[in-house]
Order: sequence, then C-alpha cells, then structure tokens
Amino acid sequence: MPLTHPDRLFPIDSSTRAIARELYQTVAELPIISPHGHCDPRWFAENKRFPNPAELFIIPDHYVFRMLSSQGIPLSDLGVPRIDGGETESDPRKIWRIFADHYYLFRGTPSAGWLDHAFEQVFGLDEPLTPDNADAYYEHIDNKLAQDDFLPRALFERFNIEALATTEGALDDLRWHKAMRDSDWQGRVITTYRPDAVVDPEFEGFSDNVAQLGKLTNEDTLSWSGYLQAHRIRRAYFKSFGATASDHGHFTARTENMPAVAAEKLFQKALRGECTADESDAFRGQMLTEMARMSLDDGLVLQIHPGSYRNHSADVFAGYGRDKGFDIPTSTDYVQALKPLLDAVGMEPDLTVILFTLDETVYGRELAPLAGAYPALRLGPAWWFFDSPEGMRRFREATTETCGFYNTVGFNDDTRAFCSIPARHDVARRADCSYLAGLVNTGRLREADAVEVAHDLAYGLAKKAYRL
Amino acid sequence: MPLTHPDRLFPIDSSTRAIARELYQTVAELPIISPHGHCDPRWFAENKRFPNPAELFIIPDHYVFRMLSSQGIPLSDLGVPRIDGGETESDPRKIWRIFADHYYLFRGTPSAGWLDHAFEQVFGLDEPLTPDNADAYYEHIDNKLAQDDFLPRALFERFNIEALATTEGALDDLRWHKAMRDSDWQGRVITTYRPDAVVDPEFEGFSDNVAQLGKLTNEDTLSWSGYLQAHRIRRAYFKSFGATASDHGHFTARTENMPAVAAEKLFQKALRGECTADESDAFRGQMLTEMARMSLDDGLVLQIHPGSYRNHSADVFAGYGRDKGFDIPTSTDYVQALKPLLDAVGMEPDLTVILFTLDETVYGRELAPLAGAYPALRLGPAWWFFDSPEGMRRFREATTETCGFYNTVGFNDDTRAFCSIPARHDVARRADCSYLAGLVNTGRLREADAVEVAHDLAYGLAKKAYRL
Amino acid sequence: MPLTHPDRLFPIDSSTRAIARELYQTVAELPIISPHGHCDPRWFAENKRFPNPAELFIIPDHYVFRMLSSQGIPLSDLGVPRIDGGETESDPRKIWRIFADHYYLFRGTPSAGWLDHAFEQVFGLDEPLTPDNADAYYEHIDNKLAQDDFLPRALFERFNIEALATTEGALDDLRWHKAMRDSDWQGRVITTYRPDAVVDPEFEGFSDNVAQLGKLTNEDTLSWSGYLQAHRIRRAYFKSFGATASDHGHFTARTENMPAVAAEKLFQKALRGECTADESDAFRGQMLTEMARMSLDDGLVLQIHPGSYRNHSADVFAGYGRDKGFDIPTSTDYVQALKPLLDAVGMEPDLTVILFTLDETVYGRELAPLAGAYPALRLGPAWWFFDSPEGMRRFREATTETCGFYNTVGFNDDTRAFCSIPARHDVARRADCSYLAGLVNTGRLREADAVEVAHDLAYGLAKKAYRL
Repeated sequence: MPLTHPDRLFPIDSSTRAIARELYQTVAELPIISPHGHCDPRWFAENKRFPNPAELFIIPDHYVFRMLSSQGIPLSDLGVPRIDGGETESDPRKIWRIFADHYYLFRGTPSAGWLDHAFEQVFGLDEPLTPDNADAYYEHIDNKLAQDDFLPRALFERFNIEALATTEGALDDLRWHKAMRDSDWQGRVITTYRPDAVVDPEFEGFSDNVAQLGKLTNEDTLSWSGYLQAHRIRRAYFKSFGATASDHGHFTARTENMPAVAAEKLFQKALRGECTADESDAFRGQMLTEMARMSLDDGLVLQIHPGSYRNHSADVFAGYGRDKGFDIPTSTDYVQALKPLLDAVGMEPDLTVILFTLDETVYGRELAPLAGAYPALRLGPAWWFFDSPEGMRRFREATTETCGFYNTVGFNDDTRAFCSIPARHDVARRADCSYLAGLVNTGRLREADAVEVAHDLAYGLAKKAYRL
Repeated sequence: MPLTHPDRLFPIDSSTRAIARELYQTVAELPIISPHGHCDPRWFAENKRFPNPAELFIIPDHYVFRMLSSQGIPLSDLGVPRIDGGETESDPRKIWRIFADHYYLFRGTPSAGWLDHAFEQVFGLDEPLTPDNADAYYEHIDNKLAQDDFLPRALFERFNIEALATTEGALDDLRWHKAMRDSDWQGRVITTYRPDAVVDPEFEGFSDNVAQLGKLTNEDTLSWSGYLQAHRIRRAYFKSFGATASDHGHFTARTENMPAVAAEKLFQKALRGECTADESDAFRGQMLTEMARMSLDDGLVLQIHPGSYRNHSADVFAGYGRDKGFDIPTSTDYVQALKPLLDAVGMEPDLTVILFTLDETVYGRELAPLAGAYPALRLGPAWWFFDSPEGMRRFREATTETCGFYNTVGFNDDTRAFCSIPARHDVARRADCSYLAGLVNTGRLREADAVEVAHDLAYGLAKKAYRL
Repeated sequence: MPLTHPDRLFPIDSSTRAIARELYQTVAELPIISPHGHCDPRWFAENKRFPNPAELFIIPDHYVFRMLSSQGIPLSDLGVPRIDGGETESDPRKIWRIFADHYYLFRGTPSAGWLDHAFEQVFGLDEPLTPDNADAYYEHIDNKLAQDDFLPRALFERFNIEALATTEGALDDLRWHKAMRDSDWQGRVITTYRPDAVVDPEFEGFSDNVAQLGKLTNEDTLSWSGYLQAHRIRRAYFKSFGATASDHGHFTARTENMPAVAAEKLFQKALRGECTADESDAFRGQMLTEMARMSLDDGLVLQIHPGSYRNHSADVFAGYGRDKGFDIPTSTDYVQALKPLLDAVGMEPDLTVILFTLDETVYGRELAPLAGAYPALRLGPAWWFFDSPEGMRRFREATTETCGFYNTVGFNDDTRAFCSIPARHDVARRADCSYLAGLVNTGRLREADAVEVAHDLAYGLAKKAYRL
C-alpha cells in the first residue's frame, strides 16, 4: 500500500484532474529553489549523519510537537530541550513511540502529508506509521540515516535543490557558511540577513548587541550614521556568503519614515533602554524603511512577515524558550502600516519588498491591491499555518484576480524539517497546477498560458524575485 | 415529490459522492448528542402537546422571524410577544399564512433545509409549502401535534436523542429538571450553568442577583470569597441535575487573571454599580478565569462564545426584548484576550475550554493555532449564522490543517427549535462526511481512517469533550 | 480560436454545468440594468466616436493601468494624464504596444476576461492579443471605432442596456443629461446624486462648495436648515434627470444621529474649517443619516460603500490625482458604525439603504446578519476588486445562508470602461447561475425555484431595489 497517492491534491473532476496532471508533469522534476527557510547550515558544513529519527522528525519540528502538546503530552516527554533546568526525555525510541501512538492526531493535516511523503520517498517505507510498527519504523529510518547516501549533502543533492537559503542573525559569524565555502562541496546554501537582535529595542540585550555590531564592523554604532553604516557592512558580509535577501518578522507591519534627526533621537533613546512599547515599534518601523533604502543600493530583497504573537504561553516560553509552537497569528493591518515605507520607496521599480502574512483576511483586502499597484511590492506565498493545500488554494483564489500571478514570488518552504522540503515543494506544485487546471477548465486561462505560468510558479518567479 | 433529496449536501462529483454516502451510512443512525442548546426543559417535564404550528415553527425561532422582518413584516404580525404593551397577532393561522406567503425568502438558506426536513420527516408532508397549501399544511401539522406520538417525550425518543443539554441561569431553581428527575421518564435532559446575571456587572439587577445567589447558597456573596463559594455551590447543584458544562457569552473574549485583592476590589465596585464599561468587561473576564479554576476542581467544561452585539436595534429591544434576531456578530480578538486565562490554566490537560466564534476570520488565524497548541483548548463547531453547509465547510477547511479533527468537539445544534434538531445534526453529519470524502479522494486521508473520523465527528468527540 | 469559451465560468462537473447552462440560457439575453457606474454622460449626449483603442481600453481604466504600474511601467508611459505638469505619452499606438507586451500579466484576472470578451464580442477579434499582433489589433479596433455602429449610442443599444446610471457631484449642472433629454435619443441614462464635495469637511474647498450649493438652490447654506433644504432641492433636481439613488463613499461606515443643535454646531465648525479629523468623520456620518431621512421623503435609494483608503501613494496622487488604481481597501466595521442610522431609520420598510463593502470578512459576519434583520437594509453585490468570479462566489457563499437572495440587489458594474459592461454582467449571470446550479445539485434549491431566482438576480432585484 503506497503512503502517497500519485494523484494526491489534484482536482477531483476527472477532466480537470487530467489537465492538472499534465501541468504537474511539466514541473514535477524542476530543481527546488528554497529562498527562505531555517535549515541549519552546520548540517551541510559538517555533513555528519542525522542522529536518530526523533531528532530528525520530532524534536526540532514545532509543527509536530505542538499538535502532540495540544492533546496534553508535555513537551518534555517529546525530548524538546528545556531552558529552565528541568528534565526532558532523552530516549529517542520512547519519543518515537509516543509520536506513533498519536499519529492519528495528524489526520487531514499537511504534516501527515509531509511525513508520509518523507517516510515513503526518502526512506522507502510503504505502510502507514501505527503504534504497532513504531519500533520497526524507527529501526528502518535509523539504519538508513547511517548510510552515506542519507548524509545531509547527499540528501541535498537527491532532493535536487538548486539553492537553499538559511537565516542567520546580523551578529552571526557565518562560520558554517564559511566552512562550506572552504569545502569542495558545490551545493548552493546561502545565508539571509536577519537583524532582529540589533533593530528591535525590545530584543534581549539590544544595546549590547548594537555594541557588538560596532565591534564586528569597526563602526561607531553609538551614532545613528555609524549604526546604519554598520548594517551596510554586515549586509555586504552576508552578501559575500550568497545572501540575496534580508528578513524581518516584527509583530506589526508598522513602518516609519522619520527625518534623520528624529530617527537618531529615537535610536539614542533605544540604546538607553528608554523606549516605550510604541517607540520601540516605531523604531523597528523606521528600520524597515532604512533597510529598504539600503536595498536600493545593495540589491538585497526585503522580506516582511509581521503578525505573529510570539511565545504566547508564558509557561512554555519560560520552560522551553522560543519557537515552540506557541506563536499565534493575529489580525494585522498593512494599508496604514506600510504607507510610510511605500511613500518613501514603493514606486521604485528596482526594489523588491516581499510581503508575507499570517492573517488570511488581508490577501484580497490589502495585500493583492497593494502588490497590484506598487512596483516595489510582491506577495510571498501562503505560509506557516497556511503552507497547506487549502491555504494555497485560498491564497490563489484571493489574490490572483487582483494582482495576477506575476506579483507573487513562487513557493518557499520556511522549514527547519529538512526531509519535508521535497514534500512541501511538491504540495505547492500540485496545488498550483490544480488551481491552474480549474482556470483552464472554466475558460479563464488558455492551456498554453497555463504551462508557462506553472513553470513560473514552480521555479521562475522564486528565482527572479529573490535574484538567485 | 420528496422535500429532501437523499443525496443532499453530498459532494457533486460522483466518485466523491459515493465515498461520502458510504461514510454517512455509518453515522446516519447514531444517537444524537446535543450538548449545547436552548430547548425548554418544561416541554419534557410536562409533556404537553405543542400548541400549534406557529408556536412550534415561527414564534420562538429567531432564525425564521428575523428573515421575515428583514423584508418589512413587523414582528407583531408574526405573534412575537411584545414587552412594551403593544398588540401582537394572536391567530396562529394568520401567522402561518404570512409565513407561507414569504417562504420563498428562505431559498438557499439552512432554515429552508431544516424546515423542509421537519415537515417531511417529522410530519410526513410531501410537497413544498406554498401560499396555496398553507392552510392544509397548518391543519396537517396541527392534527399531528394532537397525537400522542408527537408529544415532546415521544419526539425526543423518536429523534434518538441520547443526551440533550438545556441552558439555565445561575439563579434558576431547575424546577423542570427536578420534575423530570422525579418522573419515571428516562430521557437524558441535563442543564448547563449559565451565570450571566451574576457575573456581568452590566446585567439588569446585578447586585440584587448576587444577593439572591447568596440566599440560594447561604453564602455571604458580599464578600469575594463568599461569592466564589456560592458559584461553587450552584455549580454543584447544577451538576446534580446532570450539568457537565458552564456557558459564557460575553461581548468580548477578554479574560483577566488579577491578584485576589484586585479582583475583590473590582467585585465590590461592581456591587456598588460603579464599574466603568471597561471595568465591567474586566470583571467578566476575571470571572472566566475563576470559572476555569472551578472547572479544574469540579470538572465542568467551560464554554466561551463571545462576539455578538446583542439587541442591536434599540426599537426591537424596547418593543420585544432579547433574542429577537438582532444579535449581530462583530470582529473578535482571541489571541490577546485569552492570554491571561491561558497563562493561568491553558496547559492543564484535565481542563476543557471550548471556544466558539461568530467571526469566521479567527478560525484559521487564531482559534486553530491556539487549540492546536494548548492542551486545555478545544474548538466548538461552526455555530449560529454558520450552522450551515457552507459554514461547516469553511470551518473544516480553515481549522483541520492546523489543529486536526481531535481538537474539535463535534456538532451542537444550539437551538430552541426542537423539531429542527434531527435536521441540524443530519446536516452536520452530511457536511462532515462530504469534507472527509474530499480528503479521501484527493489522497489526504485513508478511507479506513475516514470511517473512524466520521464516527468521532458525529458522536464520539461531543461525548468525550462534554464528558457525557 | 475563440477568445471566450461558451461554457466559461460554469461549474466543472458536467451535471451541474448542464443545470447552470440551462439557467443561464433563461437570463443571458435579459436587458442590462446598470444602476451604479461611472460612464461619462457626455459620450451619449454628444455621440462622437471613441478616439482610439488606448483611450477606450487603457487610459481611463485603473484596473488596467495599475496592473502595468505594479510591474514598474510608469503611468506616464501609458498616457495617464498628469496633473503635475510632467509629460505623458501621447501616441496611442505606443501605449497599445506596451499594453500588448504585458498582456500576460492579466492571466487569470477578470480584466483579461472582460477585455477578451470585448475584443471578441464587441470588435469581432478572434485571436488573443500578443506583442506580435498588437499593431493589427490596434488597427482593427480603430477602424471599427470609426463606424457608425460603434458610436456610443449604437453600442448602448447593441449592449441591450435598459437603464444606465452615471454618477455626478451635487454641484454638477447635469448639462450632458440635459442634452440627452433635449435630444431625440431614447436611451435611459440617468444620474446619481453624489454629494461628497458638499458633505465632507475634508474635501478640497468644502466651504466654497457649500456656498456654491447655496447659489444653485437660492438657499442660505450658511444655516443648517438652509443647507439641508439645499440638499433636498438638489436631490429633486437630480431626480428630474432620472436619479433614483444617492451615493456615498466615505472612508468609514460611521453614522451619527445627533440632536439638531449639535449637528448645526458641527456644521458651523466645518464651514469654518475647524473640524478635527474625528469631527469631520462625525459630520459625514451625520449626513448619512440626514440623507436617509430625506430618502424617506423623496424615495431616493441610499448607497453606502465605505472602506477604501483613497490615493494611497502620495507620489501618484501628487503626479496624477484621484482614481489612479491606488485606492486600497481596509478593514471596516459596520456593526457599531451603522447603529445610529439604523436606530433612526433602520426599521422603515419603505427605505432602501444598499451597503457595499471592500472588506470581504464582513459579508458573513456583519452585513448578511444586518441585512437579514433590518427592513431598510439590502446588500450590494461583490464589488470593485471582488467584481470577479471568485469574488462573486465568495459573496454568495458567505451571505445567502444568512440573508437569502432577496436581501441582495443584483449586480452592478460600477465601471467607466464602457465596453466591459456586457462582459461584466455576463460574468455575474454566469457566476450566479453556477452558484444556483450547485445548490440545485446538492438538494438545497428546487430547480423551478432556481429559475425564478436566476431571473431575479440578473434583472428583477436590481430593478426593484433601485426603483427603476
């Protein structure tokens, strides 16, 4: 019994399914462009084996462990590392068994689709994971992981990844990227400039971070101009490791475009730790506009993805830290929030600002109308909770009629679950081909045009938007 | 000509329809669990005949009379009781004729589906209601209502209801529940603890209500601790009449978790009638957290359904009072609002908090991510205006990918229209089976798993979530 | 190769498609009622030829040129007139070539559908526009435009338009409407009363405009009562040119119902230019209620369409002025905002207030519940960005179950792109018939009823709601 159906996610109607299948066949084998994600560059720098199935599939993947948490399984039983000194399960086989016992919770979710895809197509398993075969599953995967062709670089190549972007903080020394560059491996793993720690006055240790930014760049980051210059230098450094983009995930989409004097004053206040919450938000907003201006010079693409209430559970944050599945989307305004940035640089045809959202209500109401007018704007794909067949369908249905396909940027997987990358891109390709097939079969798109669009959505747009 | 199509609400595609039909056949005859609703317990306590078709189908059902109102028919012409001393139509035949004359207004609405279902399957009618057959319809139904097998208890049994929850205020003496308990009837009709009148400082007569709560429980409800203890006693009393849940419908989802001293101070202010609107909201929010804490002790399930702007029309409220079809949903935040309660008790695996919404935009953005992480949270079904085929489809499409099926709680009918109960549960079962069939036919769910899920959605989840 | 598929936009399933096709055939040839739009009455008054293809299809149509702008083509390259003195392209052939070169951007958008429909069915073209045939296309259309049967009145008749409403400001002299009335042409082109310039304290030249309103009506518009009387006189004047409606597009849906003394005071403040932003909003809100009261007397239908952030780009506004594709929808509240107006006149059965929105999230949450209760309220169709197949589908899916079909008002095209009118109405008819066919094929609507509803949606409801 196959774990994945060859026609999965295609339209149900047979004539539309046939069109989707044909379109899909033209894009199924295209190389993967992964321009935004959270894989660990160390994997590819060191090329050591992945330790065990639990550490590959469960412990680092908040999509997986938050679902188990939601049914009362403590994160500590799943081996999620604690930061509060408490114990956490260390036997990967036990963790795996809990996972198998509760695998039914994932019915109907994209996680189940990604996992089954990886089990089958990466590891060659051919029956669904159940409590009964949990141990056998574990052994099977663990044995594979010991083989050379399951080492990170081998998988990277087998996955047919043309380019993979990781994300590093502005202060990161990029040592693993350096190690890759110094190696003889040819895989294209690039970094992305993520300056949260040095642009967010509310980030832990902000002023120390800014001081460290100064040291790294030999700039006086206590002055506004030195601070901006230091960013330029770090961006150039990241560019030298392939970066083509910066990445910004503030709570709101607020942007500002203050006179330099006001910005400098606010910066000084931030350094002294005296900003109110509103001023901190304003400073982050100012920095988005500053980053956009730097992008005009150095060509980095600016990615903005606001709207997540990070670390919502005080207990989980205290016990386990960030990124533990308790980041919850909120209602997000873009129209008022982006106006300062757009008035500053929105009409620049050579700038690319990619907007993401976790608030689906803005696709049609705000983002598509904005991207369908401003030259600098492009829409990122359905993302995170909406990196899913229904999420992708709603994205296309809500945006295409207003901003078309060419103001979108293709798919990104945004994942730290390495083995899910082929599955996720496959879902996106199937979903897009299904959407296109529906347009064709209702007279809204010519089939020859659909073939071109399918290729663009699967490959061309990401490459172009991210300048890869 | 049948009034209902045997394949109604199933997917249109024939292969998917076949799967849906098969799934449906496994759940169609399951007993009804109705864990949240507004039937009058007196019906079952007294077991007297329903007076006439207008009083059964029109006068108590705000789904029906608000639609007629929307086209200019005064509520008084429909026999809706006035509270302002004005006259209201008292001839049920006249009311029925107006209803029949305007039955076309319900085309495409779930009300039409429920009504046709009841006309056909409860009363054996086989042609659509029209102005021409209005009188014959009336006679037919009225004659049936005079028969023993159309008495409330007989219908309850015929409807195959395993458990039906009604809703009573905290001060209610539960006399009809007592009468049922003292009778030899075995039907399981249980109550639900709804304390609005004694937790909402803006409720008419709040301080008197709290005083009455004190009398009923022999507690000093002028003190914070006595007031809380009185709640515990009333909850226990409600539990003794089968209650497994409390129910809370504030305007916002705001929760608070104040220190006891601050809560007590606010409570005293509320008793003196000195709370500002914001303080009243804060007090209601504090009481949600207090109720959640009591639930940890006594096991009652906590139901929260915010977001309705009650009694929107000043004229209708003045003339007819509450629940007259002018409760209008509003945009509702849950992420910030629930944080105090969730920080207090959200990680408790033995607590069940069921969240409802009238703001569909939060299904995917807020509720599914929250329920897909916090052990204490479950999602109530599509509800009220969204208790409908499209509403249910959107609910599943927006929530399943993030929180799966097992963080939802099955269906509830939430109705005071007794004869619509089988119809409503049937719609839910058909809608869910249709959704599952779509997943199966697109390779997202194995058929054997779908059979299990269908059973859970129709029966198991409600029973488990509500501890029935 | 036809540019349009005869079954376009119909459901994909063959049995549902067959039902949709049958329904469509009963409405396809019905006359067009266009009760809200922005065609230039001068076209029909003068009946001169349209100058060239670029001025017909590109230069006046913000749907078209904003998409080209979004990919970096300056509006000046497209011949959009500048107001800042800068140059703009004046060669229509060059403009047309740019359009053809980028026609692929419109893939999957309703604009492509409307354009192809017009190219084929108005101008008899039979191959898709490409860069290669751009010049031939231009010549073909330009030649046609020179023919008598492509003059505005001939097209009006060929399009089978029964009534077409244009929109004029309160101070407009309606000269072109006068010219039509004085001509021997029988086409029914009526005006609509749009008083923005004299009800919005933030409108350029507000107090001068009010003074001019006084001159036109011989009323003392410096007094509140004179100002209101002047509106009544202008409304009567507009009515004498066929107006059946007024039209109001404020940023919010705010309404007010102040005592006359407070309203007068605010009016005086507005005349003195001393209103805060909030007071200006309040005054606009007060005027909606005043207009509703006047409607009770003179029978004009009140149209409210809030929620557009007008002229979002400061540069584009400074360079090109209003209506340049940079009007962006925002989140809009109706429940609180409309309450003052609804408490004043919402229960009036003889008043018609038509609500539009650009915020789709309110269809099901706010607008359908309001329209499904208040006699005075009706819902306008999916509109502007949502005048599209998916937009219409979502509109019906989100509203029908709550307010049915008879609280909606049929379609309007809201366009200044004259040749798109048949295409737009055709899309609406196809989309509605498709929706109805789905209801029929899932047992939610009897086919005989669907035939009646299809006719109402295509023709009857617009005629009745707009009193045409």
